[in-house]
Amino acid sequence: MIDKTFVFGHQKPDTDSIASAISMANLRNELGENAECFRLGNLNKETSFALKSFGVEEPSLLEEVEEKSNVIMVDSNEFAQSVKGIENANIKMVVDHHRINLQTNDPLYYVAEPVGCTSTIIYKLYKQNDVEITPKMAGIMLSAIISDTLLFKSPTCTEEDKKIAQKLADIAGVDMYEYGQNLLKAGTDISDLSANEVINVDCKPFEGNGCNFKISQINSADVDDVFTRQEELETAIQNDIKENNLGLYVFVVTDILNANSKVIALGEKADVVEKAFGVELDNNTAMLEGVVSRKKQVLPKILENI
Amino acid sequence: MIDKTFVFGHQKPDTDSIASAISMANLRNELGENAECFRLGNLNKETSFALKSFGVEEPSLLEEVEEKSNVIMVDSNEFAQSVKGIENANIKMVVDHHRINLQTNDPLYYVAEPVGCTSTIIYKLYKQNDVEITPKMAGIMLSAIISDTLLFKSPTCTEEDKKIAQKLADIAGVDMYEYGQNLLKAGTDISDLSANEVINVDCKPFEGNGCNFKISQINSADVDDVFTRQEELETAIQNDIKENNLGLYVFVVTDILNANSKVIALGEKADVVEKAFGVELDNNTAMLEGVVSRKKQVLPKILENI
Repeated sequence: MIDKTFVFGHQKPDTDSIASAISMANLRNELGENAECFRLGNLNKETSFALKSFGVEEPSLLEEVEEKSNVIMVDSNEFAQSVKGIENANIKMVVDHHRINLQTNDPLYYVAEPVGCTSTIIYKLYKQNDVEITPKMAGIMLSAIISDTLLFKSPTCTEEDKKIAQKLADIAGVDMYEYGQNLLKAGTDISDLSANEVINVDCKPFEGNGCNFKISQINSADVDDVFTRQEELETAIQNDIKENNLGLYVFVVTDILNANSKVIALGEKADVVEKAFGVELDNNTAMLEGVVSRKKQVLPKILENI
Repeated sequence: MIDKTFVFGHQKPDTDSIASAISMANLRNELGENAECFRLGNLNKETSFALKSFGVEEPSLLEEVEEKSNVIMVDSNEFAQSVKGIENANIKMVVDHHRINLQTNDPLYYVAEPVGCTSTIIYKLYKQNDVEITPKMAGIMLSAIISDTLLFKSPTCTEEDKKIAQKLADIAGVDMYEYGQNLLKAGTDISDLSANEVINVDCKPFEGNGCNFKISQINSADVDDVFTRQEELETAIQNDIKENNLGLYVFVVTDILNANSKVIALGEKADVVEKAFGVELDNNTAMLEGVVSRKKQVLPKILENI
C-alpha cells in the first residue's frame, strides 16, 4: 500500500507516544488521508489502562518500514528512538515536544512546541483543522497529558497543557483528577509482582568506600499501598543482602504525585541513610522530603556518607 | 539587553528572508515580546524595491550573536547559513519551509510547512494569534511570496501560497500581478550596469573536448529589454573571447516569468548551440523553450556536443 501513511511514536512507548499516534492518525484520516497508527513496542500498564478506559483498540506493532514509505513521527524526531528503516522513509510530518535532532532531504511539515505533552499540540491541530474530537480521542489525549505531566505536577507542565486537559476531560466526560489518579496508579501497579520482582523492577548495584550496596527504586501513586507489603519486601531484601554480601540496601518508593520518597534501609550500614539525609529510621523506614532522583539525590549522599 | 529576541533569516538574504524577519519580529512584538528584526547581509535590489514600495525600514545588519542570546530563525534552520555565534544562542523558535538540518539541546517552538514561502506560514501565525496584519506588513509578506514563487510560476508554489498572496494583496491595496511584475523586474534591473558588468553578473568558465568556453546567465523579467542592448553585449562578449581564447561563449537570459531562456551564442563553435538544442541561430540568438538551469540543462547539452 504505497498510499498508506504510517503514524508512530518512539520505541519503549509511553502513553503519549501511543495516544499521539492514535489521535494523529485519526486526524489525518478525517482530513482524507489513508493513515494508520502503530506502536513500536509493548504497551505499559498505564497505556493499557487508558485504552481500556475509553474503549480504544491497541495499535498494531510495527517492526520496520519499507523504503520511501510515507511516515508521520509523533512524540519523537530522533532516528535512534524510531523504527527500523526510518532513514529511508519519506517523513511527511513531525509533531513533537522534544529537542530537535533531525536531518531531512526535503521540506516537510514540522510542528513542535515546548509544552509538556505532544497530545496538547495535537489538540490544537484538531482545532486548526476544524475536526471534531470524539470522547474516545479526548480520553486518550487526556491520558497522555496526565501521564507526561504526572497530573500537572511535573516541571515540564505548562498552563496550556492544563487548560487543554480540562477541555479534553469535559469532552471525555471524566473528572480529570479522579481519572488521573487512577491512571497513574494503574501505571505503577505492582499487585501481580512477587516481592522479589518488586525490588528488582529497577535495582542498581554500587560500591563505595569498600562497601557493596544496592539502591532499588519504584514509582508509586500510592506509597502506603506498597508499604502494606513491607514484611515480604524486607524478607526479599535480606535474602539479597545475604546472597550478595551487601553492607547496605536502600529500597526507594517514589511518590510520583507528591514528589517525595519513602525508603526501606537494611544492612549493617543502614545508619548511613540517617546521616545522609538527616533522618531517623523508624521500623527501618524514613520519609525523604523532595527526593525523587536516585542519580541526582540519593546516590551522591550515600556515597558521601558511607 | 538580555530580554531582547533577535529575529533573522539567512545569509545572502532574499526578499523572503528579510520580509519574514520583519513580519515575525512585528508579530512577536504585538504579542508582548521584545523582538527586533535583522539582516545577515546586504539587501538585493528586489528587496529594496519591496521595502520602498510599502515604506518599511531596512533592518540593521547583524554580524554576530552573543552566547545565550534569544533568537528566532526564519526562512532557514541551518547553522552554516546563519549568523556567527548561532551554535551557542538560545533558539526559541524556527519558522521555515526548507528541509531540516538542526540539532538543539532543548525543546523549542518549531513550525515548518512544505509551502513556497516562509511568509505564507507567518500569515497563518498572525491569524492563529489574532494579530491584525497592517498594509505595510501585508505588502512585504506579499513581496516575499511573489519573489519565492516567481509570481506563482515556480514548481514550489502551492495553492495556499497563492490564496494567501491574494489576501495580502487585498490588505496592502495592490494588484498582485501588476505589483509582482514590477517587483521581479526591479530584482533583475541591469540598467545601471555596463555591458561588461552584465555579462559578468554570473559567468562560469568550462572546458570540453579541448575547447575553452563560458556560460554566463542573468535572470530577467523583461528579456526584450535586455536584448535592446544586444550590440554592446556582443562587443563585450567578443572582447572576452579574444582575451581568453574561447571557442564558445553562451550568454543565457532566463525569462523568470515564462521559464524560458533566450541566448546569444558567439565564437568559432557557436553552432554547437544549434546542435545541442535543435535550434537555428538567428542574428546570433536563439530561444530555448523550457530551459532555465545552466547546471542541469545548458551545460550537459553543450558538453555532449562540443
